[in-house]
Amino acid sequence: MTRRQIPVVERILSANDRIAANNRERLRGHGITTVNIMSSPGAGKTTLLLATIRALGEACKIGVIEGDVASQVDADKIAQAGVPVVQINTGGGCHLEASMVQQALNALPLEEIQLLFIENVGNLICPAGFDLGQDYNVALLSVPEGHDKPYKYPSMFEFVDLVLVTKTDVLPYMDFDLAEFRRLVHGLNPRAPVLPLSARTGEGMEAWLEWLEAAVRR
Amino acid sequence: MTRRQIPVVERILSANDRIAANNRERLRGHGITTVNIMSSPGAGKTTLLLATIRALGEACKIGVIEGDVASQVDADKIAQAGVPVVQINTGGGCHLEASMVQQALNALPLEEIQLLFIENVGNLICPAGFDLGQDYNVALLSVPEGHDKPYKYPSMFEFVDLVLVTKTDVLPYMDFDLAEFRRLVHGLNPRAPVLPLSARTGEGMEAWLEWLEAAVRR
Repeated sequence: MTRRQIPVVERILSANDRIAANNRERLRGHGITTVNIMSSPGAGKTTLLLATIRALGEACKIGVIEGDVASQVDADKIAQAGVPVVQINTGGGCHLEASMVQQALNALPLEEIQLLFIENVGNLICPAGFDLGQDYNVALLSVPEGHDKPYKYPSMFEFVDLVLVTKTDVLPYMDFDLAEFRRLVHGLNPRAPVLPLSARTGEGMEAWLEWLEAAVRR
Repeated sequence: MTRRQIPVVERILSANDRIAANNRERLRGHGITTVNIMSSPGAGKTTLLLATIRALGEACKIGVIEGDVASQVDADKIAQAGVPVVQINTGGGCHLEASMVQQALNALPLEEIQLLFIENVGNLICPAGFDLGQDYNVALLSVPEGHDKPYKYPSMFEFVDLVLVTKTDVLPYMDFDLAEFRRLVHGLNPRAPVLPLSARTGEGMEAWLEWLEAAVRR
């Protein structure tokens, strides 16, 4: 690679960051707290959002941006829960970018939203590098994925404000060492709490809801 | 995007394809069958390879290229099984490229290998687009990820020669509809067999081993 190519990469990154900063200003102007949810495919992002919407009920006005390579199956589920939602299809792209979120914001009733979730594309690598305008970053790691994932995907765990261990209801059937997972995460990122939960049984949901309520108040 | 930018993208792709074609020629020259294994993080690629190495034993000389963003935990496990292995760390990259495999081939005893597995980076999106020089592409989808994934990650399922449904031992504890998953895969890719298995219990391993033996003979 020649030296002349490097500034091009820098311009691409800063274009995303500029739009992300606009999104952040716009969201904060509406008093909205924005949480970017990231994980591997099938770790339970949508199931967690549905359980969170049910648990918070009227206590907090929620909006959701759904990111997927294709389809709107997740947005359909969120819409059925009675919450404003926009589906972004990246058409092959492996993560959301700030310009996609900017377009989604145009389609949401921002004046009716206090807490906006952005469900990123299912991918434990690429979403970590892209600012969207969010206030907080949350990674989900499901019990069936195994406790060794911070070794192999360190940038995601370094990057986030909170790590949720999902699907704890299947802990008895899986070889997952929660203490070892916590140790690996805190080796990369000492400040991120690690909260285990099961959206299916409700176990551990209180700690997540308390974290959210504190985030909305801040 | 202007017209002048499009040829640049084409050149990048064809550089990878050119190296992939070299890899393929080199591997076939050694009589090696190469299988590219892809899935989400934690779907069980390494566990399947370890079970396959144990099951085939002396019947087939296996080699492995391990792809990860960071660490060599997977290569260490394969090396303990007594099989030649090379670890590629992409250093943030979300998929393997042909040039990485080319370097890995330089470090493997090709004359001692009949069946080479390339374990791609854990990612259900990006690896689908990159030829490495392999003969076959296999996708793993683990039961805990859910049967709806072909809707959201169609390019992976369109691309592969075989789909393995892994971790079937946890089917009783998960909401996974195997018939529906099969229907979705075959809607995208009618020619790919869908084989359910559990590397932990051994259930379904015979059909995978038969597929491999036929692939090596071809």
